[in-house]
Amino acid sequence: MTSPAPVVLVFLDPAFPDGRLADASRPQLMATDQGATRGDGVFESMLAVGGAVRKLQAHLDRLVGSAQALDLVIPAQDAWRAAIATGVAEHRSQHPATSPAEDELVVKLVVTRGPEGAESPTCWVQVSPVGALGRRQRETGIDVILLDRGYDSDVAERAPWLLLGAKTLSYATNMAALRYAHKQGADDVIFTSSDGRVLEGPTSTVLLAHLETSDDGAGATRTVRRLITPQLDSGILPGTSQGALFAAAKAAGWELGYGPLEPQDLLDADAVWLISSIRLLAPVNHIDGREVGTPAVQKQLTAELNALFAGIQ
Amino acid sequence: MTSPAPVVLVFLDPAFPDGRLADASRPQLMATDQGATRGDGVFESMLAVGGAVRKLQAHLDRLVGSAQALDLVIPAQDAWRAAIATGVAEHRSQHPATSPAEDELVVKLVVTRGPEGAESPTCWVQVSPVGALGRRQRETGIDVILLDRGYDSDVAERAPWLLLGAKTLSYATNMAALRYAHKQGADDVIFTSSDGRVLEGPTSTVLLAHLETSDDGAGATRTVRRLITPQLDSGILPGTSQGALFAAAKAAGWELGYGPLEPQDLLDADAVWLISSIRLLAPVNHIDGREVGTPAVQKQLTAELNALFAGIQ
Repeated sequence: MTSPAPVVLVFLDPAFPDGRLADASRPQLMATDQGATRGDGVFESMLAVGGAVRKLQAHLDRLVGSAQALDLVIPAQDAWRAAIATGVAEHRSQHPATSPAEDELVVKLVVTRGPEGAESPTCWVQVSPVGALGRRQRETGIDVILLDRGYDSDVAERAPWLLLGAKTLSYATNMAALRYAHKQGADDVIFTSSDGRVLEGPTSTVLLAHLETSDDGAGATRTVRRLITPQLDSGILPGTSQGALFAAAKAAGWELGYGPLEPQDLLDADAVWLISSIRLLAPVNHIDGREVGTPAVQKQLTAELNALFAGIQ
Repeated sequence: MTSPAPVVLVFLDPAFPDGRLADASRPQLMATDQGATRGDGVFESMLAVGGAVRKLQAHLDRLVGSAQALDLVIPAQDAWRAAIATGVAEHRSQHPATSPAEDELVVKLVVTRGPEGAESPTCWVQVSPVGALGRRQRETGIDVILLDRGYDSDVAERAPWLLLGAKTLSYATNMAALRYAHKQGADDVIFTSSDGRVLEGPTSTVLLAHLETSDDGAGATRTVRRLITPQLDSGILPGTSQGALFAAAKAAGWELGYGPLEPQDLLDADAVWLISSIRLLAPVNHIDGREVGTPAVQKQLTAELNALFAGIQ
């Protein structure tokens, strides 16, 4: 057994305006907590770099949206901000980074419906180091397989009880899909809908890019960079990283596009990534064993997007 | 806040062959437990009557099957049996039933993937009283609405990573569907597939019955009782109560049938029930506001099936 990564826990608690630090080496949850017994709750995972949480507002806003979808009344954003600050400061104090490049922390926000009979949810902030695997995959890229998620791309609108736009704690199928991929020798998954659309990864958003060179009509060539993601109304989670990167790319002159996308669109792209808050941009090298894009273009575009993404607060 | 129901907890622990009793009023789970953070685990809910757990072997077998679907290696059935016996005895000792009719307990088995980095799952038995609502609904019956579960009826076979035959802790959508029903003034839900088949309730199996009277050709009438449930390969959980009741009904001369079923089949039935291990047979009075079956026949068949079900160990 590997020794567990150092974790700092801060519970949101009205009696502690800055959050209540709790011993992560001791049990802190009731066994009847509906998070544990029913996956009944919501969460966010964020990256803190040099002590600053990236895209904090976007994550807090999505947490609020997820909680509303589950009829959970959660503490105000100020309480979350205070608890996050407490947790990040405590972790950096207890476990200082060995170098500025290593100064990355995962900040997870968790809300459960609380123990059976509770009037208010259980809410906490968990701060831990970024895993080595995710950091490595940013560099090496990943191989993915396509897996059917079973839903068609219209279901989110007609069946809100399926909570498709909410980031719930009920991630058993997402984890099962990842285990299934690992058994096939792949690193990750891109889900497709039962009607053949590209959806999302189990813990990430799909991006693809096209580099288009055209004649401007006056004899000069013009290069268009186009960044595309599946349309949101297909029942996927709105990606905070995708959203932020799209805004930055647009400001840098990229053109933006939104699906519907089919698997062939991934294979026809010049580059494909899975993007998420902790692993950031993971270039996709193979999909179902088939090479994706062109390595030189993938490398160039990844570098450009990483530079844009690094500027996001 | 209602005072919480008295709960007894017994953790499975190799150092305690009969299970380790734990204080249910204190936190017992790590905040990093993947049951709480990802709904990553499996469970069973069983009924103990007079201290004896009903259909114990069927529940233990289903727990094993669910765990296998999630690649969880769980303790042997003997360890579960010992912990269950400890938990039930402790609850009956601490909180004796006020009458034999009240001597019903919910025995829940929970397995989570354990805290991040753990080599073995977290496993416990939770014993608590049966809620008044479920007991009442056995008598009064329930009103249900039909809700689309988004999956088609073939998905379970082609997409095992969706874990459709496993009873996972990821119940957020099941709970959301129940809340959606309650907001419509209904008590419960029957899920349908995207291709229009009847599936199951969020926490129950669907049964319907037909009473058919025919002439035997010799001038006498013959009454056939037929009990029908959706076919298992439509991606529903195999119901331990349905299985046991079918066996008992067959022995008592009922004919048995298996779907495919469509919503109209429910409306055309003489009686419809949701059956589950704790609430037992809950007669369905209305579906989407339309009356189901004929009250006199429903009452008669419910009494017959309850009598059969009471004989199941």
